[in-house]
Amino acid sequence: MEKREGKEGLSLKYRKSQFSEWYNQILQLAGIIDKRYGSKSFFVWMNYGYEIMLNIKRYWDKLFRDVGIKEMYFPLFVPIKYCEKNLDWWEGFKDQAFWVKGAGEKDWDHILRPTGEPAMYPMFSIWIRSYNDLPFRIYENVSSFRYETKHTRPIIRDREITLWHEIHTAHATKDDAEKEVKLHVKLYDMIWKKCALYPLRVNKPKWEIFPGAVGAIEYYNLMPSGKVLENGSINNLGQAYSKKFDIKFIDKDGKKKYVWQVCTGNGARLLAAVIGVHGDDKGLIIPPEIAPIQIIVIPIYNNDTKRKVIDKAKKMWRKLSKKFNVEIDLRDDVTPGSKFYDWELRGVPLRIELGPKEVENKKLTVVRRDTGEKFMVKEADTFKKLEKTLSDIQDNLLKRAKEMLESSIKTAKNEKEIKTVLDKKCIAKVYWCGSGECWDKIKAIDEGAELFGTDLKKTNYGKCVICNKKTDIIGYVANTY
Amino acid sequence: MEKREGKEGLSLKYRKSQFSEWYNQILQLAGIIDKRYGSKSFFVWMNYGYEIMLNIKRYWDKLFRDVGIKEMYFPLFVPIKYCEKNLDWWEGFKDQAFWVKGAGEKDWDHILRPTGEPAMYPMFSIWIRSYNDLPFRIYENVSSFRYETKHTRPIIRDREITLWHEIHTAHATKDDAEKEVKLHVKLYDMIWKKCALYPLRVNKPKWEIFPGAVGAIEYYNLMPSGKVLENGSINNLGQAYSKKFDIKFIDKDGKKKYVWQVCTGNGARLLAAVIGVHGDDKGLIIPPEIAPIQIIVIPIYNNDTKRKVIDKAKKMWRKLSKKFNVEIDLRDDVTPGSKFYDWELRGVPLRIELGPKEVENKKLTVVRRDTGEKFMVKEADTFKKLEKTLSDIQDNLLKRAKEMLESSIKTAKNEKEIKTVLDKKCIAKVYWCGSGECWDKIKAIDEGAELFGTDLKKTNYGKCVICNKKTDIIGYVANTY
Repeated sequence: MEKREGKEGLSLKYRKSQFSEWYNQILQLAGIIDKRYGSKSFFVWMNYGYEIMLNIKRYWDKLFRDVGIKEMYFPLFVPIKYCEKNLDWWEGFKDQAFWVKGAGEKDWDHILRPTGEPAMYPMFSIWIRSYNDLPFRIYENVSSFRYETKHTRPIIRDREITLWHEIHTAHATKDDAEKEVKLHVKLYDMIWKKCALYPLRVNKPKWEIFPGAVGAIEYYNLMPSGKVLENGSINNLGQAYSKKFDIKFIDKDGKKKYVWQVCTGNGARLLAAVIGVHGDDKGLIIPPEIAPIQIIVIPIYNNDTKRKVIDKAKKMWRKLSKKFNVEIDLRDDVTPGSKFYDWELRGVPLRIELGPKEVENKKLTVVRRDTGEKFMVKEADTFKKLEKTLSDIQDNLLKRAKEMLESSIKTAKNEKEIKTVLDKKCIAKVYWCGSGECWDKIKAIDEGAELFGTDLKKTNYGKCVICNKKTDIIGYVANTY
Repeated sequence: MEKREGKEGLSLKYRKSQFSEWYNQILQLAGIIDKRYGSKSFFVWMNYGYEIMLNIKRYWDKLFRDVGIKEMYFPLFVPIKYCEKNLDWWEGFKDQAFWVKGAGEKDWDHILRPTGEPAMYPMFSIWIRSYNDLPFRIYENVSSFRYETKHTRPIIRDREITLWHEIHTAHATKDDAEKEVKLHVKLYDMIWKKCALYPLRVNKPKWEIFPGAVGAIEYYNLMPSGKVLENGSINNLGQAYSKKFDIKFIDKDGKKKYVWQVCTGNGARLLAAVIGVHGDDKGLIIPPEIAPIQIIVIPIYNNDTKRKVIDKAKKMWRKLSKKFNVEIDLRDDVTPGSKFYDWELRGVPLRIELGPKEVENKKLTVVRRDTGEKFMVKEADTFKKLEKTLSDIQDNLLKRAKEMLESSIKTAKNEKEIKTVLDKKCIAKVYWCGSGECWDKIKAIDEGAELFGTDLKKTNYGKCVICNKKTDIIGYVANTY
């Protein structure tokens, strides 16, 4: 039986509409994390939460490996001399660094790894010599560290960013790098499906990308707070970094050239989005494909029927374990009602209720977490029916996520309309001339509001929401985390 | 095709008898790690080396999960206030700590996690409340950090100890803790088999265990240098830590009691032992069960036969991929001889040579890395024969490891004989009275020499190698890493 670490015997006090409080409470009560660790903005990943993350991680790992991206591991310590190879970055980052030194050492000449490039790219410049070495495509899964000075929030803005996947590739040509970007768009599509999420995909405004880079695609999930959460970016770095880190190769024509680079990364924010998008007033709803427990079996009995029911429930549990992630709740000092409550709170997609009547009729009572729907399944049909229902839940959650996003994007024609949209916890869709001036004015509308990205496609023309200039750029405005 | 990162076009200069030089060179040449990273005693795990480690890790993970030990993740930062809960430990450890702070922070009130207990046990004292919460059994896989002041050596003594598995359990009774220790002895037996290693299992002398603990079992691999490498320990902590960290539970009898604890851990040193025990003058020999590449297919052709041979080789590679970790070496600018050399150096267990004659006769030439034996296999028998051969290699390596260890343990009756045994790069087996005085005298025999453990079984009596007192304790003396 599943131990209930993290459970405090407390019930969920807040409704999801009180998102910030709801989020913090559900993380603790559902056994995702424990915030009572003794360092500010560091927390413990409880087993249940960590298993969800590991399910996501394993899927990423498989995707990367299937397309030939190889895993490596770089040290967590980055020498300052490496950071200084990209002074633009270093000057901006310095104040968010965690500095580290051995006891007794005088000089602070290392920081903890904030992102891969200062650790990886100096090595790229050693390893990459000729066109034969290209494409060079690696990934790493590691914690990253940032001394966040903004308001921290578990899994959304942490000082230790755990299970962070970072992919870095180097190519001989600009075309090859563009192909790599397209590949990663496909991989992200797959991971979103796995997590039953439907984010908004946008281009990052030019001044928000790495200096010298070609472009960046970013994904945003709209959270119930009305804020959008950046969740993964694909950066076409061009030669911006290869020139700083001196990553050159001898091409087929005998000439030395700088490589073209792509990097992309994603981490635990995927789980934050799952929690925010799918949860409800009863607690979490974990999509079946990433659920550590897909089915919970709950025996219901009195003293007379106990033996018979538990025997049957255990048998069922063992049988189902062959195909599903299934647990059985055998706690004897807890009522069935409390058990229902607990497992709903943790977001287990399916519940099987098994009482004397079910045993007698060779049927199971099944309850869906996403819709609350309750139905009977013949024992003989169990496998097929449960498999189908889990797949339906996965699809339904994805459909819901899509509808939620789409219905939350509202066109705004002027500043006032933007404000109205944001007040409704939605995303404003606006025409934007592309100028920094108008961007700044949009940013000034509301604290935290921002034109966080532009549509990937250009279609019809319209008038900039600020200056009325004709433009084919569509931008999205929301409060951001 | 496998990219050859880490390869420098250099050949192995040292023989295995020059172990220290051989070890350093093979790590780099075989693509295990790259030491050219810009921080002293930190290195990059190259893909090939990391994949071996991941194979070992996945097996550990499975073992733990199968016996119900749950994975969690604790922050890498440990507040000093947590360290100070065990002052004995903290006073001794302080000087090996890495201190960390956010840019602009004044106080250094955190260190990086050197071992699990200072991070985990304060949380145990929050989580564990009643006998219902016990046993509490978790594990974590994480990097640990120690500012080593001794001579560092890659994978043997590092400042960042990667892929470190740490298991911590808490139990209601001393008996339960002892059962847990026995379980871990079994799990270690399985992992040793997986790695084709045969270590010496010993009890740690009393003054070497945690103050207040019940006992510790340790594993040592004898390296070709004649030094033994500590490789995993199972610590029966008793109530030593629960008293320091106040980890109490209310028992069935309503009384508050301290829990009984066990901890054990293991990491990349397993790979160091594999390299040291199995390698030879040609390079590594990776046991098939942990080999990222179990079989390498090498096509041999001239201009006339190229097309035919490569087609066939690719076909064979795809076919074998269904069952084995197999790669094909299609480099066109490298001779077959060089390819043989490269893959032998990397320790791939089996090589398939495929030339026009093989294509014609529907046979493959197969070469074993461990014995050098070369034989033909009919295409129709390939799967069965390769599977059998890989299993034979695994068995043979384990057998070799056992023989190597057993033939290296030599009885010594006095100090002079101990010295002679150590000079032969062997382990001295001695009677020892159990006193610290005689232990110190043994330690004084040679720099680095130590009675590192005692036999788990007590049998006949003999005379202490130093003081001649009658004793039934057998101790093992060797140089230690």
